[in-house]
Amino acid sequence: MNVITSIKEMQQYSEKMRLSGHRIGVVPTMGYLHTGHLSLISLAKQNADIVITTVFVNPAQFSPEEDFEKYPRDVNRDVAMSESAGSDVVFTPSVNEMYNHNYLTYIHVENISSLLEGQFRQTHFRGVATVVAKLFNITKPHVAVFGQKDAQQAIVIKKIVKNLNYDIEIIVAPIVREANGLAMSSRNVYINNGEKDEVAVLYKSLKLAEGLVGEGENSVEVLRYKMKDLILSNPKFTLDYIAFSDESTLEDVETITDKPVLVSLAARFGKVRLIDNIIVSRI
Amino acid sequence: MNVITSIKEMQQYSEKMRLSGHRIGVVPTMGYLHTGHLSLISLAKQNADIVITTVFVNPAQFSPEEDFEKYPRDVNRDVAMSESAGSDVVFTPSVNEMYNHNYLTYIHVENISSLLEGQFRQTHFRGVATVVAKLFNITKPHVAVFGQKDAQQAIVIKKIVKNLNYDIEIIVAPIVREANGLAMSSRNVYINNGEKDEVAVLYKSLKLAEGLVGEGENSVEVLRYKMKDLILSNPKFTLDYIAFSDESTLEDVETITDKPVLVSLAARFGKVRLIDNIIVSRI
Repeated sequence: MNVITSIKEMQQYSEKMRLSGHRIGVVPTMGYLHTGHLSLISLAKQNADIVITTVFVNPAQFSPEEDFEKYPRDVNRDVAMSESAGSDVVFTPSVNEMYNHNYLTYIHVENISSLLEGQFRQTHFRGVATVVAKLFNITKPHVAVFGQKDAQQAIVIKKIVKNLNYDIEIIVAPIVREANGLAMSSRNVYINNGEKDEVAVLYKSLKLAEGLVGEGENSVEVLRYKMKDLILSNPKFTLDYIAFSDESTLEDVETITDKPVLVSLAARFGKVRLIDNIIVSRI
Repeated sequence: MNVITSIKEMQQYSEKMRLSGHRIGVVPTMGYLHTGHLSLISLAKQNADIVITTVFVNPAQFSPEEDFEKYPRDVNRDVAMSESAGSDVVFTPSVNEMYNHNYLTYIHVENISSLLEGQFRQTHFRGVATVVAKLFNITKPHVAVFGQKDAQQAIVIKKIVKNLNYDIEIIVAPIVREANGLAMSSRNVYINNGEKDEVAVLYKSLKLAEGLVGEGENSVEVLRYKMKDLILSNPKFTLDYIAFSDESTLEDVETITDKPVLVSLAARFGKVRLIDNIIVSRI
């Protein structure tokens, strides 16, 4: 496994690969890989000759009160796991390498960055947008794979690629879940095994909404009420939001029609913040 | 001459050229080319195999009260002139091709965008930064050439390239002037020939400062006073600013030392806004 920490070296590697006719896939991650990430790497490998997994805990997407310092890290484990899934290179730069002295440039996607997660994490998507643009310029991929778990992030990135004319194909891979339905997340290490069945109620609430839509319920008000009721029956939960949104503009939806609707939620289980989502529509 | 208007076609052309081992140079312009632009194209040709001249009057860098609508345009003339200077391709997309429906993504360079020109043109550098990033992603150059005439623009662009890790060499070409010293500018068409000697006083004021520094004057207060005095002796002028700034951070300088200082100014001659600059330092 080729582990690269220098931006210049990464660019030279990618340029060489492109010039020799190889198709490059990139999977940007914050490391502490889980089965969800491995599915992204496998998918990248199916769509490219060379897969670069980037492992970088990006300070620009954390706000001061968030868990940047304590975010779980284990690069050696990440290198081994990503290799097992088909990654050819791990690019893992230092914070200093990525944000050098007097760093001043940020990318902002208006409107969609300030909705949903953006209401609770003000500069989060500015940080995501900026680091993803940097990683694109550094790894020079033909294709990049992101997870549907971070649905809004995927929408923001697709918008950047379209608006800034990055000549890169974006693939969004389905959410990988544990047996009880809990969406895979590096932050799940904050939850002990005894609590995992409790937090699985988040997915159950999404499936509840899907089921009700299948039975003909099309009122977002009713659906949100029933999801809320289910989640908050456990007093350990507080809810940041349950949102029903247009799949590409993220505008609020009041009624379920035959257009796909993103149902997304963010909840706090004790101190742990969890997000999940599902796409629903009338058949 | 190859004239391309489609983003997709431009990307395919550049990708093909890169894969066949050609070095690509790009010269981004707003068209209505003059001798200054031609010097940029020649310089690009000296540093690349293929030169792409982009001709696009970028609405995002004009504020509503500025001259976007009446900005001079003549693409056929631009194609002929750029070819004469060594350009291989003119990329001239429509506004609609560049900023499609529901455009939301902007690049912002903090601090340096709000100084000097940024004080008078609030969203100007956001527009410049955004369109240049787009043009880089579309034309995929190895090297890009900009003019020192727009000194702050060149500084903003160098910052973007460094911060966002564009693998592109930036060359800043010296200002080309008319015989009387007036810096070449597409906006000079707004000035009639009888007035050209009057506006040449702007350059004279910069040369005055340079001369005084050569004689040992190092007080920015004194230098600014004498420049102001010279320019405002013609009542047709009003001054937006005369600034003495660190060449890379654009921070204000109070005393001339052996570090290069950017002396820049913006003035209005009647309704026409003109900028010019020079670099000075104690020898």
